[in-house]
Amino acid sequence: MGGIIGIADTMFARYDMGALAERTIKDNGSDIRCIRYTVPGVKDLPVACKKLLEEHDCQIAMALGMPGGKDIDKTCAHEASQGLIHTQLLTNKHIIEVFVHEDERETDKELTKVFEDRIKKHAINALGLLKGKDELRRYAGKGKRQGSKDAKSLG
Amino acid sequence: MGGIIGIADTMFARYDMGALAERTIKDNGSDIRCIRYTVPGVKDLPVACKKLLEEHDCQIAMALGMPGGKDIDKTCAHEASQGLIHTQLLTNKHIIEVFVHEDERETDKELTKVFEDRIKKHAINALGLLKGKDELRRYAGKGKRQGSKDAKSLG
Amino acid sequence: MGGIIGIADTMFARYDMGALAERTIKDNGSDIRCIRYTVPGVKDLPVACKKLLEEHDCQIAMALGMPGGKDIDKTCAHEASQGLIHTQLLTNKHIIEVFVHEDERETDKELTKVFEDRIKKHAINALGLLKGKDELRRYAGKGKRQGSKDAKSLG
Amino acid sequence: MGGIIGIADTMFARYDMGALAERTIKDNGSDIRCIRYTVPGVKDLPVACKKLLEEHDCQIAMALGMPGGKDIDKTCAHEASQGLIHTQLLTNKHIIEVFVHEDERETDKELTKVFEDRIKKHAINALGLLKGKDELRRYAGKGKRQGSKDAKSLG
Amino acid sequence: MGGIIGIADTMFARYDMGALAERTIKDNGSDIRCIRYTVPGVKDLPVACKKLLEEHDCQIAMALGMPGGKDIDKTCAHEASQGLIHTQLLTNKHIIEVFVHEDERETDKELTKVFEDRIKKHAINALGLLKGKDELRRYAGKGKRQGSKDAKSLG
Repeated sequence: MGGIIGIADTMFARYDMGALAERTIKDNGSDIRCIRYTVPGVKDLPVACKKLLEEHDCQIAMALGMPGGKDIDKTCAHEASQGLIHTQLLTNKHIIEVFVHEDERETDKELTKVFEDRIKKHAINALGLLKGKDELRRYAGKGKRQGSKDAKSLG
Repeated sequence: MGGIIGIADTMFARYDMGALAERTIKDNGSDIRCIRYTVPGVKDLPVACKKLLEEHDCQIAMALGMPGGKDIDKTCAHEASQGLIHTQLLTNKHIIEVFVHEDERETDKELTKVFEDRIKKHAINALGLLKGKDELRRYAGKGKRQGSKDAKSLG
Repeated sequence: MGGIIGIADTMFARYDMGALAERTIKDNGSDIRCIRYTVPGVKDLPVACKKLLEEHDCQIAMALGMPGGKDIDKTCAHEASQGLIHTQLLTNKHIIEVFVHEDERETDKELTKVFEDRIKKHAINALGLLKGKDELRRYAGKGKRQGSKDAKSLG
Repeated sequence: MGGIIGIADTMFARYDMGALAERTIKDNGSDIRCIRYTVPGVKDLPVACKKLLEEHDCQIAMALGMPGGKDIDKTCAHEASQGLIHTQLLTNKHIIEVFVHEDERETDKELTKVFEDRIKKHAINALGLLKGKDELRRYAGKGKRQGSKDAKSLG
Repeated sequence: MGGIIGIADTMFARYDMGALAERTIKDNGSDIRCIRYTVPGVKDLPVACKKLLEEHDCQIAMALGMPGGKDIDKTCAHEASQGLIHTQLLTNKHIIEVFVHEDERETDKELTKVFEDRIKKHAINALGLLKGKDELRRYAGKGKRQGSKDAKSLG
């Protein structure tokens, strides 16, 4: 079906999130093209995504970042998330936010696993949303998680 | 009278919220059509609702989600709620937010009851708002609750 | 001078706020017409007010609600307030927010008094703002309160 | 050079902030005209300022308020501040926010001094910004404070 | 390649942030012009940056500020940050936020080092973003920090 996915990532993150996202999309959507955008930190992601969606013809974007563990970092992540939602409302296009919080896990090894699992699964989600509003319906209410194993579905 | 209600739900939720909302609307408004949209999590709901309202001709939407119990989940729900209100202001159409917080109840059985009661009652509310600004007047100030029994009305 | 005041209230509230607001306006502005709009909860008030101001020709609106006492209710009220301010900026019209928090007082009797005092005083304020930017000047800096007695003015 | 400064203040404040702002501007900018607007509380200030800037031809506005000392008052002030920043972005004009928090000082006498110092200094700042983007450059990084004495500048 | 960078700073800051930003840009981008804008505090930065980007033809802006260490100062910084992100979305241009929190370090000497390191590095980042979306790609995921030494990159 074709399509262009924008991938915005940061210098602040301690993992090359954009590279893995791009690789996953390439592996799972051979007709999809990626456009990259690297910014200093998560608060620079909203406008980068807006430019990818408006000036670089992307149909969807992924916003990749690693907020730090301090209070001020949590506030930055919150502001970035608000900006990413606002961007979607201004463009009528999806932005999949993939944030891995530095304090989610205790060791670098565990944190690396979160990066890998969350980025890969959300890259697949982006490909799904690109196909349309019904593509992810089969997972509705299934307790799907990114970065860990799925939760139990009720009833 | 007819009409189209958009129903946006998530993969993250542990209950098939969209299915119950659709069933309730079908049972109570035989001339109403539903359009579904499934996204990964609650922060993806605002733009999904905006697209339902603007691109799929829905007159009203329901935004169904189950925020998790961690602090970060509370923040996500807050951001989603802000986005849903913003979406309504951009479209001049109602979005009924139906969020069930995973930590509202202690057991899966109790939580399931909250899902059922809140979704059903709010689906009925959506049908009411679709009829116009005076339809819900008879309940003004009556302490109506969704997910539990009603509160006592004063005076 | 005439004019139309929009009155938006909720099913969630435990007091019939809209009725008292309408009665007070009728008693104090015989040439003013009221248009009512009832929604489920406070987060539905912003778009209801926007529709009153844009689609029903109201020059000003009152947004009446009773946020509950739990943390999640405080967050809802905050989101509603942000939406109400945003609505005013999009319409260039005033919305008088009249929120009575369920935990402001300990007994139903005291809470009822807050409802009555705050709604009546703010209905009068709405009539004042309808007359123009200078009508409330005489009260500038006077420590005026709604829901309790006024505070002491300095100097 | 001429110009019009909008002055929005509140009935809630316990000090006649608008009067002192107007007097200070008159004393320091003999060719500047002031237009006043009084509203019930700080959350009514954003749209009042927007109307001053858009409908009353003001080039700049001052938003004067006294948030109370309770948690709910802090939230109100936060919402008002967000609205004031939003208003500036919608109008491309400055609004100088002059908020004196009721709990900044312990006695009425001390609080009165904060009102006087902050209002006077910010009225002068408004006159400066009216002259253009370079007028306040000489104070850049100088630790200037309003409501108390200046802080020490580094280096 | 040429270009104009807007530099907005504050009177509140205790360090002449704008001067160092301008000097760094001059030293590293001989064909870049800077336009300065000084405002009272961080909450005045969003509209200053918007004017630099829209009325003074800047392609990018730096927003320089020093939030104080009190709770109210943290709230001000948060509001300013939200406004700066909003400004970027309205202009489709980057604003590099350079905030140094007064309580980040314990001594004036250490705080001065943070000012110097963060301002210089972010001025270089601004020059990079001016060149385009791929210029900073080589640093993606490298744990780059401004104001301290870089963090360790994973994998």
